[in-house]
Amino acid sequence: MDADITGPSIPRLLSIENTKVRGSELGIIPVKSPEGIEVISLNLFMEDEEQPVIWRGPLIAGAVKQFWTDVLWGNLDYLIIDLPPGTGDVALTVMQSIPINGMVMVSTPQDMVSMIVAKSINMVKTMNIPILGVVENMSYMICPQCGKKIDIFGDSNIDIFLDRQDIKLLGKLPMSKDLASVAENNENNMQNDIINTFNSIIDKIDSSLNL
Amino acid sequence: MDADITGPSIPRLLSIENTKVRGSELGIIPVKSPEGIEVISLNLFMEDEEQPVIWRGPLIAGAVKQFWTDVLWGNLDYLIIDLPPGTGDVALTVMQSIPINGMVMVSTPQDMVSMIVAKSINMVKTMNIPILGVVENMSYMICPQCGKKIDIFGDSNIDIFLDRQDIKLLGKLPMSKDLASVAENNENNMQNDIINTFNSIIDKIDSSLNL
Repeated sequence: MDADITGPSIPRLLSIENTKVRGSELGIIPVKSPEGIEVISLNLFMEDEEQPVIWRGPLIAGAVKQFWTDVLWGNLDYLIIDLPPGTGDVALTVMQSIPINGMVMVSTPQDMVSMIVAKSINMVKTMNIPILGVVENMSYMICPQCGKKIDIFGDSNIDIFLDRQDIKLLGKLPMSKDLASVAENNENNMQNDIINTFNSIIDKIDSSLNL
Repeated sequence: MDADITGPSIPRLLSIENTKVRGSELGIIPVKSPEGIEVISLNLFMEDEEQPVIWRGPLIAGAVKQFWTDVLWGNLDYLIIDLPPGTGDVALTVMQSIPINGMVMVSTPQDMVSMIVAKSINMVKTMNIPILGVVENMSYMICPQCGKKIDIFGDSNIDIFLDRQDIKLLGKLPMSKDLASVAENNENNMQNDIINTFNSIIDKIDSSLNL
């Protein structure tokens, strides 16, 4: 469920940006990605994906609620909800109207040391939703010229911050053309160590959920 | 004016995160940064900057309008409004309730080739606000080990995209510890070429505005 109503990026990520959603008498039928993932996103309802959604908060919140109530999700293993960044209206709607087993936070080292992530963490705690952990995105980079590792944002005291908040680090993802091109070109040429990192993140989430 | 109500980062950026805003009978008095910039931000009203603002859209829109009407801005050279990312409620409120001379878009190469920037551009055009140009952020990186330039997101056809939209590229900023640490540590140790890029961006904005 792509709950980022004004910036929906999931259809492109899963190569279904040219498919449109269908309705039925029983409800909205989600679009199935080539990998077999059922997807709903506001972009799947639009004729032209470059057209902006210029909506006020209540309308946006209404769309998110409809994605939850009116879509024929069927028998899912997991329902993964992609939220827009920050502690805005959509995050509030999702946390209030959908029963959530756990929240995975995704952040960059830069935002982690600022108070932006602390705000989000405090919001989730206020709403009594378990925080499964943090994924550090754009964590480092491998120089394509010399092969050395670059700490993009310098030495940040993220471990201390997470310790203080009692939150687990699920994994660190590099800044990588491979990762960017999965989204842009849908090429599946990721390096093994990135795939391993993803698998380890998934395992940790899975065991936290205890499903 | 920090219009990013739920993720206000301007006070930290300008080293005034420990100052609080004062009121007077005539209105709200903005906080002056060490460089002499008058600032208003929701974080300047909060006891603890790590506390989230869990507000619905109409309340957020109300705060933005108040920043415009109730703050004693005085005699400014420019009023710069920092918007949250995307085409959400705040962007709509700002574009509808404040007379705007021009919009500067800031984006990454990754978002530029996706439809996210196209959505924003189409929103601004719909609201009849002149687009002064695009700043490409996180455009490249200089490897601190070997000194070579890295195109982080690969070769993207941004020029073609901007040409098609008839929009000027104002400049390309690198991913750099120096730039990140201006925000985090308020150190002012930027390299000369970054300062030159900033100055060139400012000159282009200035001449587009014709003020």
